[in-house]
Amino acid sequence: MKIPETLYLEDNALVILDQTLLPNKIEYVHLTTLEEIWQAIKTLQVRGAPAIGIAAAMGLCVHMKHFATCGCTIEAFITEFDRACEYLSSSRPTAVNLNWGLKQMAETLKANKEKTVSEIVEILYQTAKKINDDDTEVCRLIGEHGLSLLKPKMGILTHCNAGSLATSKYGTALAPIYFAQERGFELRVYVDETRPLLQGARLTAFELQTAGVDTTLICDNMAATVMANGWIDAVFVGCDRVAANGDFANKIGTLGVAILAKNFGIPFYVCAPFSTIDLNTKTGSEIIIEERDGDEITTQWYEHRQAPRNIKTFNPSFDVTLAKFVSGYVTEKGILTPPFLGK
Amino acid sequence: MKIPETLYLEDNALVILDQTLLPNKIEYVHLTTLEEIWQAIKTLQVRGAPAIGIAAAMGLCVHMKHFATCGCTIEAFITEFDRACEYLSSSRPTAVNLNWGLKQMAETLKANKEKTVSEIVEILYQTAKKINDDDTEVCRLIGEHGLSLLKPKMGILTHCNAGSLATSKYGTALAPIYFAQERGFELRVYVDETRPLLQGARLTAFELQTAGVDTTLICDNMAATVMANGWIDAVFVGCDRVAANGDFANKIGTLGVAILAKNFGIPFYVCAPFSTIDLNTKTGSEIIIEERDGDEITTQWYEHRQAPRNIKTFNPSFDVTLAKFVSGYVTEKGILTPPFLGK
Repeated sequence: MKIPETLYLEDNALVILDQTLLPNKIEYVHLTTLEEIWQAIKTLQVRGAPAIGIAAAMGLCVHMKHFATCGCTIEAFITEFDRACEYLSSSRPTAVNLNWGLKQMAETLKANKEKTVSEIVEILYQTAKKINDDDTEVCRLIGEHGLSLLKPKMGILTHCNAGSLATSKYGTALAPIYFAQERGFELRVYVDETRPLLQGARLTAFELQTAGVDTTLICDNMAATVMANGWIDAVFVGCDRVAANGDFANKIGTLGVAILAKNFGIPFYVCAPFSTIDLNTKTGSEIIIEERDGDEITTQWYEHRQAPRNIKTFNPSFDVTLAKFVSGYVTEKGILTPPFLGK
Repeated sequence: MKIPETLYLEDNALVILDQTLLPNKIEYVHLTTLEEIWQAIKTLQVRGAPAIGIAAAMGLCVHMKHFATCGCTIEAFITEFDRACEYLSSSRPTAVNLNWGLKQMAETLKANKEKTVSEIVEILYQTAKKINDDDTEVCRLIGEHGLSLLKPKMGILTHCNAGSLATSKYGTALAPIYFAQERGFELRVYVDETRPLLQGARLTAFELQTAGVDTTLICDNMAATVMANGWIDAVFVGCDRVAANGDFANKIGTLGVAILAKNFGIPFYVCAPFSTIDLNTKTGSEIIIEERDGDEITTQWYEHRQAPRNIKTFNPSFDVTLAKFVSGYVTEKGILTPPFLGK
């Protein structure tokens, strides 16, 4: 695939493709301090549930390496590690992968407490790289399983960006589309622009176009029309958290698309790593939804005011879709349905 | 109401509030030539089904007055009148009111052919003013009938702008809200921003805020969430054309809102003058849908590119909602259901 790398780990920096500048500019940013990493996740320079899990793990080991240069004790190292985990975890509340990535790192630390600080730092780097490589393999498998749901010439609708840019590679919802493209399926893919931050227009359209996929960009409120026109055979979306009963949180607007798909009898698939399923969350009603600044709605690109001053806004970043609207959960373990326990 | 006037007729000009500049600037434009009037309708400086019917009628008489200053024969006057009608009619294909306004003018001309050209011009002015006054009365009656559907403290969702700015005064979908506001109902109104041209954010939010209504602006893709949260008791939208069977065309995104409302068991009302009902159109499938330039989606304010270059787009300006999603059609004749013949 020709799509630029989402993020990678250097000896002393986490390097990310700044997604806030896409599609106009392809620019990598070197993050070295914990605050920079927190800020990059918060401001969506790196985003997408799997990618922020990887970014958090990578960022954490960059920070701990810098911290360790002071020649600290193992106790001071652990205290700082816990503080850094808690701090990074506060950057985006909804995505389960963020905490999942940090938890992998914490378990690595716990298992290696008897080693020296510099040995631990080395092991943390290996773990972060492994989290990244595992994600690539997970996405590859999601792509292969999802491919079994596709046929040549199908029309697909997707919302937000659950693509290569949201993961280490391939993406989740877009992985089956890329694999179909490689096999000459000639899919037609419709992309919701995904207000307010336009991840569909800026990221998904960019990715799919770069990969040569037949891509049509629409506004979110046109999804019903392309379905009514008979142009859509299946919906593929990613997701940020799946509850034990199959309810799931994903980018705001997903719920609406799911209800429309049900109305038009169109299958609706959620593509995500198995780690996105949070068995500790019983139903969708327990998922905390992040609300973001209303300026994202009222002021395009923070320059041009497009709504009256002092207008009240409601700007949830995610919504919760009930399990009854989902045809299947495409994971690296296959296409699942709830209950997920023991799968 | 404190909302600025939408449009008015001067001796030698049609004066319109330039809605493309709202909410940042309140600026009136004097239109004197047919081309300026066509352009103002085409570029949505004046928009909203009833308002463009009035603008076309007013614009036509301004043009014919100027044309008549050449001292033409009645035959030349009629030929030019027909040409001007056809030309104005081409500015927006979907709205039935545009042609309805022009037809009123044509009938006036037909009934007064025996008169002198200057007498006819005078009568055309009177007719255009009457179309405007009649619209105000129609909107007032829509407001009164719609008010019967409201109760204090209700939450209302509206899409696009079917307000004062879309009509001579009061609006259609917003008229009941204004009358409820005057009676102290304390409604909570949620406004879809309405991509791509943001009539909800720019116009409806502006109107409602100016009138002191408790208004919350949301992105189109958040409508499902505010419904799921239990915040919406009824949906009120305007419309551009109703077919004989009750299917109707309205701003893109209306279909999606209607399907969502049905899913959540929320009543969905279409507010429109009876003249919007086109008995010659049997079903919604016969309605021609205007498609607009993809730049409206890809380039915000024609300045900032927010999607990849050369990306394909689909940009229908309207969609068609089936009658089965509509709880009632609020017209000046009362709250109707199809068939409309004889009502």
